[in-house]
Amino acid sequence: MNKKIKLIIVGSIGLDTIETPRHKKETILGGSLSYACLAASFFTKVGMVGVVGTDFPKKYVNLYKGFGVNMEGLQHVPGKTFRWHGVYDKDMINRRTVSTDLNVFAAFTPELPASYRDAEMVMLGNISPNLQIHVLDQMKKPRFVVADTMDLWINNARGTLVELIGRVDMLTLNDSEARLLTDKHNLKECARIIMKMGPKYVVIKKGEHGAILFWKEGTFIVPAYPLDEVMDPTGAGDSFAGAFMGCLAECGGRGADCIKTAMLHASVVASFGVEDFSVERFHKLDRKTIKKRVDELKKMIMPPR
Amino acid sequence: MNKKIKLIIVGSIGLDTIETPRHKKETILGGSLSYACLAASFFTKVGMVGVVGTDFPKKYVNLYKGFGVNMEGLQHVPGKTFRWHGVYDKDMINRRTVSTDLNVFAAFTPELPASYRDAEMVMLGNISPNLQIHVLDQMKKPRFVVADTMDLWINNARGTLVELIGRVDMLTLNDSEARLLTDKHNLKECARIIMKMGPKYVVIKKGEHGAILFWKEGTFIVPAYPLDEVMDPTGAGDSFAGAFMGCLAECGGRGADCIKTAMLHASVVASFGVEDFSVERFHKLDRKTIKKRVDELKKMIMPPR
Repeated sequence: MNKKIKLIIVGSIGLDTIETPRHKKETILGGSLSYACLAASFFTKVGMVGVVGTDFPKKYVNLYKGFGVNMEGLQHVPGKTFRWHGVYDKDMINRRTVSTDLNVFAAFTPELPASYRDAEMVMLGNISPNLQIHVLDQMKKPRFVVADTMDLWINNARGTLVELIGRVDMLTLNDSEARLLTDKHNLKECARIIMKMGPKYVVIKKGEHGAILFWKEGTFIVPAYPLDEVMDPTGAGDSFAGAFMGCLAECGGRGADCIKTAMLHASVVASFGVEDFSVERFHKLDRKTIKKRVDELKKMIMPPR
Repeated sequence: MNKKIKLIIVGSIGLDTIETPRHKKETILGGSLSYACLAASFFTKVGMVGVVGTDFPKKYVNLYKGFGVNMEGLQHVPGKTFRWHGVYDKDMINRRTVSTDLNVFAAFTPELPASYRDAEMVMLGNISPNLQIHVLDQMKKPRFVVADTMDLWINNARGTLVELIGRVDMLTLNDSEARLLTDKHNLKECARIIMKMGPKYVVIKKGEHGAILFWKEGTFIVPAYPLDEVMDPTGAGDSFAGAFMGCLAECGGRGADCIKTAMLHASVVASFGVEDFSVERFHKLDRKTIKKRVDELKKMIMPPR
């Protein structure tokens, strides 16, 4: 189990309370880092960079361990862990935030252990662009850097965010965020503008409608796998990005086939993630089951001869 | 030019006033029948069933003719043509109706000329299910019948609509309408319920997110072709359905490859349609240009090996 760490992921770890029309779950494991690390761990050796408080249950530490995630970069500090409470509408897409308590996350400064600094790949999960840059500065010479972001930073830290975007290979963001960032509605135009800011690849996530990858040589559209039931959509975008990076790390290249394969696996792992609360579904998931659904999705999108 | 009529389409013909954030166009050709007939005419010989008033400009009659559409089934009656006035939001998706004047459409009873009754394929565009059934009753033995519908009929004529659905091979409707019809949110579940009502095929249209075809043997997901600019989204669903049926008529079969090919062409023809107001874009369109975009779209969705 002493495999070399290939992918570093930084993000948030939270204890979430989530309400859907039919269920309520309290103090369950959440945060972009949790979803992304576990999703990536199906494909590659991951090192996590995050922070938890003294109230963070030992069982969740063991859970990360069980997935083979390296935790040298996980800071345990006095205080309470980041908490988020959200309520989903009947459509299971729109949600409102009841409360956000940053707690130990407020003073978080990500520090990378020496063993992380020469990893090939970095995923800068959705945290302040300041901190994302701070992580990037500690890396020696990563081969592929992806950053995720959100409306909060586009509105409140645009300058720093633009600086960060200029330094990454790929940016992932929601359709509404792409529109906010570029002040354009057409997604093709949004992607073109973002690529001019630096990244060679832009992934625009559209939730239940899938995701579109734009890059110089083309466009690759991946739908979401049609599910029988969505139990909890929290973290889908983080699972998507984590699985994408994990799969890309495993593939070892950046060619169109590697990128497309990573997109398909990302969509599929994200679809599994939303079938249960928190990261529950990942416990019962294995590569064989992922492959089966990837093959199914391929059949659903395969154009005629 | 005396080709046998393969596809009969019934629907509305309108004189539309359309406002977008940047343009306003008055009294332009619209209606589900106009969009569907012209879209289908790229692939097969179409006969139209509809009604216009004495105010209907001769140039639009000539326009249909120019596309080779048979107009024996077009009724010219005293009174004014159906009129619709809509205003699109900035997003070019949501719209509000300023006014709808049924005019001659209010008393419309579709009557099929003898030459239409043994056509192989029928598209029952979005009109009242009563009239759709009336058209179907006049057909001898069509090989493939598709019906489109909308929220108005689901809410106000559910019984008749369900009777109609039981008699068609395929139903096409928007995602919100599928949810309204079945009282379920999950589209896979919606499709399953609709197929139990009769149709072997269900196409759920998702606007800018494309469309999903459900049938017993599987699912085929087709994204919308990513456009540089949408000028006027009116009629996209009608163009989609018309092109689908035209392409299927041309293909001559109902195998998965024919159906998938029709879905791709439908998505592409609809994408051309929204690049300009009314049916303007269809004037400058030919099969070669359609094929080029179909090939482009295929590349964008082609999964990796």
